[in-house]
Amino acid sequence: MGLSYLVYPGAHHTRFHHALGCMHLMQKAVNVLRFKGVEIKQEEEEALYIAILLHDIGHGPFSHAMENSLVNGVSHEEISLRFMETLNAEFNSNLTLAIQIFKGEYPRKFLCQLVSSQLDMDRADYLKRDSFYTGVAEGNINSERLITMLNVVEDELVVEEKWIYSVEKFLIARRFMYWQVYLHKTSLVAEQLLIKVLQRAKELTNTGIALQCSEPLSYFFTNTVTLDSFDDSVLQMFSKLDDVDIVSAMKTWQFHDDFVLSNLCDMIVNRDLLKIKIRDKKVKSSKLFEYKSKLIHKYNITEEEADYFVFTGEISNQAYQQKRQNINILYKTGKVTDISKAPDQLNLRALSKPVTKYYICYPKEKL
Amino acid sequence: MGLSYLVYPGAHHTRFHHALGCMHLMQKAVNVLRFKGVEIKQEEEEALYIAILLHDIGHGPFSHAMENSLVNGVSHEEISLRFMETLNAEFNSNLTLAIQIFKGEYPRKFLCQLVSSQLDMDRADYLKRDSFYTGVAEGNINSERLITMLNVVEDELVVEEKWIYSVEKFLIARRFMYWQVYLHKTSLVAEQLLIKVLQRAKELTNTGIALQCSEPLSYFFTNTVTLDSFDDSVLQMFSKLDDVDIVSAMKTWQFHDDFVLSNLCDMIVNRDLLKIKIRDKKVKSSKLFEYKSKLIHKYNITEEEADYFVFTGEISNQAYQQKRQNINILYKTGKVTDISKAPDQLNLRALSKPVTKYYICYPKEKL
Amino acid sequence: MGLSYLVYPGAHHTRFHHALGCMHLMQKAVNVLRFKGVEIKQEEEEALYIAILLHDIGHGPFSHAMENSLVNGVSHEEISLRFMETLNAEFNSNLTLAIQIFKGEYPRKFLCQLVSSQLDMDRADYLKRDSFYTGVAEGNINSERLITMLNVVEDELVVEEKWIYSVEKFLIARRFMYWQVYLHKTSLVAEQLLIKVLQRAKELTNTGIALQCSEPLSYFFTNTVTLDSFDDSVLQMFSKLDDVDIVSAMKTWQFHDDFVLSNLCDMIVNRDLLKIKIRDKKVKSSKLFEYKSKLIHKYNITEEEADYFVFTGEISNQAYQQKRQNINILYKTGKVTDISKAPDQLNLRALSKPVTKYYICYPKEKL
Amino acid sequence: MGLSYLVYPGAHHTRFHHALGCMHLMQKAVNVLRFKGVEIKQEEEEALYIAILLHDIGHGPFSHAMENSLVNGVSHEEISLRFMETLNAEFNSNLTLAIQIFKGEYPRKFLCQLVSSQLDMDRADYLKRDSFYTGVAEGNINSERLITMLNVVEDELVVEEKWIYSVEKFLIARRFMYWQVYLHKTSLVAEQLLIKVLQRAKELTNTGIALQCSEPLSYFFTNTVTLDSFDDSVLQMFSKLDDVDIVSAMKTWQFHDDFVLSNLCDMIVNRDLLKIKIRDKKVKSSKLFEYKSKLIHKYNITEEEADYFVFTGEISNQAYQQKRQNINILYKTGKVTDISKAPDQLNLRALSKPVTKYYICYPKEKL
Repeated sequence: MGLSYLVYPGAHHTRFHHALGCMHLMQKAVNVLRFKGVEIKQEEEEALYIAILLHDIGHGPFSHAMENSLVNGVSHEEISLRFMETLNAEFNSNLTLAIQIFKGEYPRKFLCQLVSSQLDMDRADYLKRDSFYTGVAEGNINSERLITMLNVVEDELVVEEKWIYSVEKFLIARRFMYWQVYLHKTSLVAEQLLIKVLQRAKELTNTGIALQCSEPLSYFFTNTVTLDSFDDSVLQMFSKLDDVDIVSAMKTWQFHDDFVLSNLCDMIVNRDLLKIKIRDKKVKSSKLFEYKSKLIHKYNITEEEADYFVFTGEISNQAYQQKRQNINILYKTGKVTDISKAPDQLNLRALSKPVTKYYICYPKEKL
Repeated sequence: MGLSYLVYPGAHHTRFHHALGCMHLMQKAVNVLRFKGVEIKQEEEEALYIAILLHDIGHGPFSHAMENSLVNGVSHEEISLRFMETLNAEFNSNLTLAIQIFKGEYPRKFLCQLVSSQLDMDRADYLKRDSFYTGVAEGNINSERLITMLNVVEDELVVEEKWIYSVEKFLIARRFMYWQVYLHKTSLVAEQLLIKVLQRAKELTNTGIALQCSEPLSYFFTNTVTLDSFDDSVLQMFSKLDDVDIVSAMKTWQFHDDFVLSNLCDMIVNRDLLKIKIRDKKVKSSKLFEYKSKLIHKYNITEEEADYFVFTGEISNQAYQQKRQNINILYKTGKVTDISKAPDQLNLRALSKPVTKYYICYPKEKL
Repeated sequence: MGLSYLVYPGAHHTRFHHALGCMHLMQKAVNVLRFKGVEIKQEEEEALYIAILLHDIGHGPFSHAMENSLVNGVSHEEISLRFMETLNAEFNSNLTLAIQIFKGEYPRKFLCQLVSSQLDMDRADYLKRDSFYTGVAEGNINSERLITMLNVVEDELVVEEKWIYSVEKFLIARRFMYWQVYLHKTSLVAEQLLIKVLQRAKELTNTGIALQCSEPLSYFFTNTVTLDSFDDSVLQMFSKLDDVDIVSAMKTWQFHDDFVLSNLCDMIVNRDLLKIKIRDKKVKSSKLFEYKSKLIHKYNITEEEADYFVFTGEISNQAYQQKRQNINILYKTGKVTDISKAPDQLNLRALSKPVTKYYICYPKEKL
Repeated sequence: MGLSYLVYPGAHHTRFHHALGCMHLMQKAVNVLRFKGVEIKQEEEEALYIAILLHDIGHGPFSHAMENSLVNGVSHEEISLRFMETLNAEFNSNLTLAIQIFKGEYPRKFLCQLVSSQLDMDRADYLKRDSFYTGVAEGNINSERLITMLNVVEDELVVEEKWIYSVEKFLIARRFMYWQVYLHKTSLVAEQLLIKVLQRAKELTNTGIALQCSEPLSYFFTNTVTLDSFDDSVLQMFSKLDDVDIVSAMKTWQFHDDFVLSNLCDMIVNRDLLKIKIRDKKVKSSKLFEYKSKLIHKYNITEEEADYFVFTGEISNQAYQQKRQNINILYKTGKVTDISKAPDQLNLRALSKPVTKYYICYPKEKL
């Protein structure tokens, strides 16, 4: 949830809690499927639990912000995989099956789908959890019922016909959470500011300016990390990083001499963010130029420095993605088809359309 | 909810409880609107409470079944109005304003809309209530939040822009309740059977056969009631009728000599209903003919008698009805427009399309 | 819940629903215990489900009222047993084990305790259910967690030490429900009135006055039923009785000529009950005499008739009954002791003390 | 909640959120009381909101740990007061009335009681909140209903007689939360360790050893703060401290050279705490001596250093404290008496008895 607590003050829940929740739901899913006669071997069960417990371990602090700054080009999925491989070496190859499932390469596809698909235990947990902690009732789903709906046909996950409304409700709930929470404009601007804080800190470090911060954080400012160089020692350092390192650094840096760094940190720490506007159309460059000029003039800063305070970007969401791991409906007749081909009273065609929006951020009067 | 408890065993809640709930929500709505600066006079407030408390008083037992049999051609709204007028005479015209609001004729339109519209307190209560008692989570709405969304512009009810997702969710919840509960196929067939019980009982009474039942129920079998003849003495008799009269009669009639009456009653009392199939297309008359022929042959009954056990019909629902009391959105700019004209990420156009289905009922093997 | 809906308008839930709920919880209990390594054989499991599903089948309509009038001297447990024995004959002795468990005679005592004890599935369901439908939050227990606490030591049900607060909370919740719901003064007076209606109806029938009512109800007025005479034909008749027979009769009898019967029925049907006062001490007979005299004088009725409107009685509750199926705590050390011997911070000694109260009922002014 | 998240992983909620919650409940309380005819002036209302919003502002990070180490002898209430006085100077004495209410010196006592008493909005919020975030259902109270119970007689807060069970349930819920959450043994040992970390850090600083940490934290290690010296500059520094400063320091210190400091920090950061035993009786000094000797011998450390790892203490709780702001019950007769004098069916006498327990902490095998 990154900095969403700036909008939803209850949203302080952790990734650790989410991992436990996913594991709990996975246990229920295994029970339900076995009860319906689906065979799941002992070692497959164990692998499922390992895979779901570790699926998010590669997320750094304020994950998405970090991916876009400190570990550029290395996704959290890849880092999760590195962690699993390291643990696999440590635990006598006991994670081999879990890794196969995590990578989506296990032949019994439904096991992979339970870990990652449009109806996986990850989503079943995080939608419910985020809805609970933010208080946004629109996203509240009944995870247990969702699991009850699942079945397996020819090693593929399916949902029985009679639950079709519940699937629709699940997709709609997820859409609501995207627009009301994950892409909430205040979270959005805060996250962008955090990315820029980390970028600026790295930039300053590169020019030889030492910044007070924890050792692991410092490591990622002074070293350029790529997928190839992400070895065990990097992983070790990565594992020591958490939100505390970053927030602690920002609390200190808000008093730094650098105009850009101190202002960005101050905005986040004291929750006095940039203004943000969200539009259906791309932002005109003349608009950007106008805001930047004002800022450059007012503070006598360079255009590169102004870029930290005036910028644009886009956000998008597609509630149902047919191409990526579609949701299959099992009809009473035994037929299995994609949910978007279901009858008229559903809105799934509307949900399959991706929606894109554009934002622009710029300083409030005071800056 | 009629006979829905045959499907959802918790659905035994009463209209009395619903009336109290509506009144409670109306009090909240008055508070919220006044807090937002909308002027509501003391007598308007009182009239609102009277109107909502009595809005459903004209429902007979198993209301919709009754409207289609015993009091043919007189709607429950008209009977509610008769009750209010009688009470108005009794209470020195103190209900005049309430009646005006109930009829939708009061100039300050939002007061009428609170009693009857697509966002009225009636729906706010019954969706929540029916969802609670059936356990169908998909219909669960946050009534209190719904009320918080309301505002008034030029005496019309509006919803502020930022709540637009919540309105969508409300409309979707209602749609779910229609397809999963109100139009559930088992409730549907049970209700049709009940209509036929009452029709048969009336028919038998008309041919001079005396049926054991309570006095008020007997009254409506022996008298033909129309809107014009619905005077105080009819109203008096009507007010004595409740579910007990009807269920009690069916418990007795399941042992009656008449093949049609006893079988229909037995089906409902012992929850051993007709088979029902729901289709997207009209049922072919050849199909109906086939089932009827079999039945006529097997039991040596007339075609008219067979019609009680083999029949067809249609059901339909439109989640959002633009023509009837549309929902207005108040934008930050001050502009007010119909919600179906709202931006892309909403599905309201899909919700505005009416959906119709067709059903056929016929005996299970045993009959 | 008898006539509790006169106080809590949502309390219209049924015994059928309760039976399903108990069965559901029993399934969970079997899962939990097996997961903890307790062996439960296939036929024991099935017997548990049968026993709990049927444990309340002997309750007549408004059960406690009926036990005290129509089937004097025959408890609902005995009638449940008769039903089970009849079913056992019909189903090739397949209920034998269930009957043994129901009677508490099966050697593996914990199976009997799951059906009937201070922590049985019956209580686990009805407390939660009654709390849910009345809205009395104080009685809300977490049934699933309660089940999670259970374990078995030497074939006896025990609760693990760490759950001791939850057991206390469960006992307190039950106590709250007794005083706030089950013994609520308005329910209490309504139930007493119902008992008196049935007594009066039987009395009138005995003197040769025919009362309009359903056939099964009539049967119990004209026949004196005892435990010995409770054969299959009585059982058959008994099974046809439900709330509808009684309410329907009262709706008719409120217009009967008999002063006592019509007034009692009118009070219940129109919810215009006797006054009731609850006291910590016994009601003085002089007080009773005073109210009765006034009534006799006013209406010129006999003392026997006045007894129907002026009477006294007592109610009592003991939250924790050590003698009857005590609750055993399993300590980490392996020791098992009665919960009332648990440490200081618990209030169980206070909960073990029975509390008795006395009530007096008499007419409001209007009678 | 301090370090309770080590036990209840959802317990990451913040004091900021609690302050908002209290304020929200206070608004409800004002509405309820005014609705019941209690006069509350505009400026009293505002003062109530200020007082409750700021009542906890004096809590430092991990408040109780800090009070017992860094700001020895200065309670959080006193610091809250300092903050309010500083704000009062800044805001033209607009907080004068709020301060009077916060100090319990305002003549209309119920206003003080809403801010601080056994039924104040503080408790109404934190019990519900902590129960929600920990998932400990036993502590779940219905805050809104609690507020509905309140009334005022002669400027004193009272609860109407009919709510007496709800008050009892509230007191019991609080007691459950104490024993299951606030005094949970794992939270307890973690908090003691944190106190010792801060004490050791101060000790090391005093001997001239510089520890890496944030500036505000460093300030409290190098300066001895007392109530008298707590001026605006200290307050300013205090206001910059939060959990991040402390956790960040411990993450660094776990690698420090000092045996005591690094081991203590490692225990908390990696959740590998001391063993703790809770007993009804005081811990014998011989027991303490035994553990300490072993440790001194094993690591060749001083007795003073061993004291950091082997220690004892006591915890206590009294569910209902008659002396401190008792709870008054308003009877229908108009009489007002203390709740502990209420009738037999309540357990309040048991709840009034303080319960004390003793703990001992010592290293697990590994140290």
